[in-house]
Amino acid sequence: MTTLPSKKTETVSVIGLGNMGRALAGAFLAAGYATTIWNRTAGRGDELVARGAVHAPSAAEAVRASALTVVSLVDYDAAEAVLGPLAQAGAFGGGRVLVNLTSDTPERSRSAAVWAAEHGIPYLDGSVLVPTPVVGTAEALVLYSGDRAVFAEYEDVLRALGGRAEFLGEDAGLAAVYDLAMLDFFYTAMSGLVHAFALAGADGVKAVELAPFLDTISSILPPLAGAMAGHVDAGSHPGTLGNLAMETAGIDHILHTARRRGLDVTVLEAVRTIAGRSVGKGYGGDDWSRTVDEVRTA
Amino acid sequence: MTTLPSKKTETVSVIGLGNMGRALAGAFLAAGYATTIWNRTAGRGDELVARGAVHAPSAAEAVRASALTVVSLVDYDAAEAVLGPLAQAGAFGGGRVLVNLTSDTPERSRSAAVWAAEHGIPYLDGSVLVPTPVVGTAEALVLYSGDRAVFAEYEDVLRALGGRAEFLGEDAGLAAVYDLAMLDFFYTAMSGLVHAFALAGADGVKAVELAPFLDTISSILPPLAGAMAGHVDAGSHPGTLGNLAMETAGIDHILHTARRRGLDVTVLEAVRTIAGRSVGKGYGGDDWSRTVDEVRTA
Repeated sequence: MTTLPSKKTETVSVIGLGNMGRALAGAFLAAGYATTIWNRTAGRGDELVARGAVHAPSAAEAVRASALTVVSLVDYDAAEAVLGPLAQAGAFGGGRVLVNLTSDTPERSRSAAVWAAEHGIPYLDGSVLVPTPVVGTAEALVLYSGDRAVFAEYEDVLRALGGRAEFLGEDAGLAAVYDLAMLDFFYTAMSGLVHAFALAGADGVKAVELAPFLDTISSILPPLAGAMAGHVDAGSHPGTLGNLAMETAGIDHILHTARRRGLDVTVLEAVRTIAGRSVGKGYGGDDWSRTVDEVRTA
Repeated sequence: MTTLPSKKTETVSVIGLGNMGRALAGAFLAAGYATTIWNRTAGRGDELVARGAVHAPSAAEAVRASALTVVSLVDYDAAEAVLGPLAQAGAFGGGRVLVNLTSDTPERSRSAAVWAAEHGIPYLDGSVLVPTPVVGTAEALVLYSGDRAVFAEYEDVLRALGGRAEFLGEDAGLAAVYDLAMLDFFYTAMSGLVHAFALAGADGVKAVELAPFLDTISSILPPLAGAMAGHVDAGSHPGTLGNLAMETAGIDHILHTARRRGLDVTVLEAVRTIAGRSVGKGYGGDDWSRTVDEVRTA
């Protein structure tokens, strides 16, 4: 818990003007906040300046311009390179808060929180879970973790970036944990989508013909995820949703068919190997969620 | 095209009473069709008989009882073992039609269609795309391919099995192609779900806490699949949806984090390797759909 200035800021600063940083600054401008911006490379903020943003001559002046500074850089090495000298120079004095929306690992987020505490900087870590065109909309999901008082004080301001602003807890690494877990699912599923297109395409089925049917699969994933989550937390996989032995037999049909067509099958082979380990241990009648035990032990 | 009896059947037969076969027979009974059943192992149909089904004393008598016979067995080896002697004995005479809903590979479906043609049996191949509790509902998707005249004549009857009955084309392997492609996406995505639970769980996040956020990812997959399908068919991946170089960098954060926690990362490593090959060929600014080229060449 941190003592914060009680008056809400009406000016905000954004450091880092890559695609995401520009989207964040643009969302603040669209919500009517006086916005100060800074980027190491000049020129990136021209469009934002045309919309009313002030380009500070230095990162330190950008921080001093507002009670709230949002940072969006390529990774935490870049963030530390910019923030380290600012903290040394006392730019974050007077209870100025730092919201770091740079994407990296949970460990880097936790280190940054320790660093911020050492410098007396109220610190909130966060992850933007939507692509840049969605930033600033009511549907945009942005996850936060770290200093609960900072989130409570600035939640309204942060909702300019995404209407679905969620505080996950005081472990500053949590936003990154959720972010990486969601992206883990996302990229794996995207790989499955592309492979499905390739498999059907090998027999002359166009991707646009297959895509509507893939939606059928997507639509059953949320209820399945909910049911599987209960099984994972309980450590009980009773086979009410499926049957691993039958599912691995089904995967073998896919692998056989894909190999005959000369497709790369490394991803599904790895999926099959993990499920097969569960079946080999006698869990063939269990639900797919049983495979979590195999994933947990490399 | 086949000449079929013009009068629609009001009796149907189901051969094979595993979980799926029983669900199919139950759906016919629920829709009011007089239903004859047969299974190699006795006793499997007792509940169906209690609901009014007739258990034929032999597979041949089951086939002779109806104009339409649906077969659901564990694979095409099992199906051929049952159907071969029936065809030799002429059980399918008089224009009786065979609808084979056994799951296997497209090659097996095509071979079965050739076999059926050789024996003068009007043949429809199909795949049930929903779990057994959903069979018989308006939402249940069942895909068919093969003899178009059979589908046209029996579409109404087949809708008892699933309201979403779709005829894909006269290549009898198409239903299996769509089935395997959809399951390819499904199992890969399910693997991603489980891995996401394991990754978040390693930092103390319960699966039920993460699951609602995974729904956010599921909900963006259908529009992404539609857009990616257009790119795949066009062979053009302009980078309007994403950026492979940034995406592989994001995957590296996940891999690094998962490895530190001792998780199995074989699936996502394979995903990363494929995407990395695209980036290595200079497609780092392209959309994720570009990776289809790498999947097509093992």
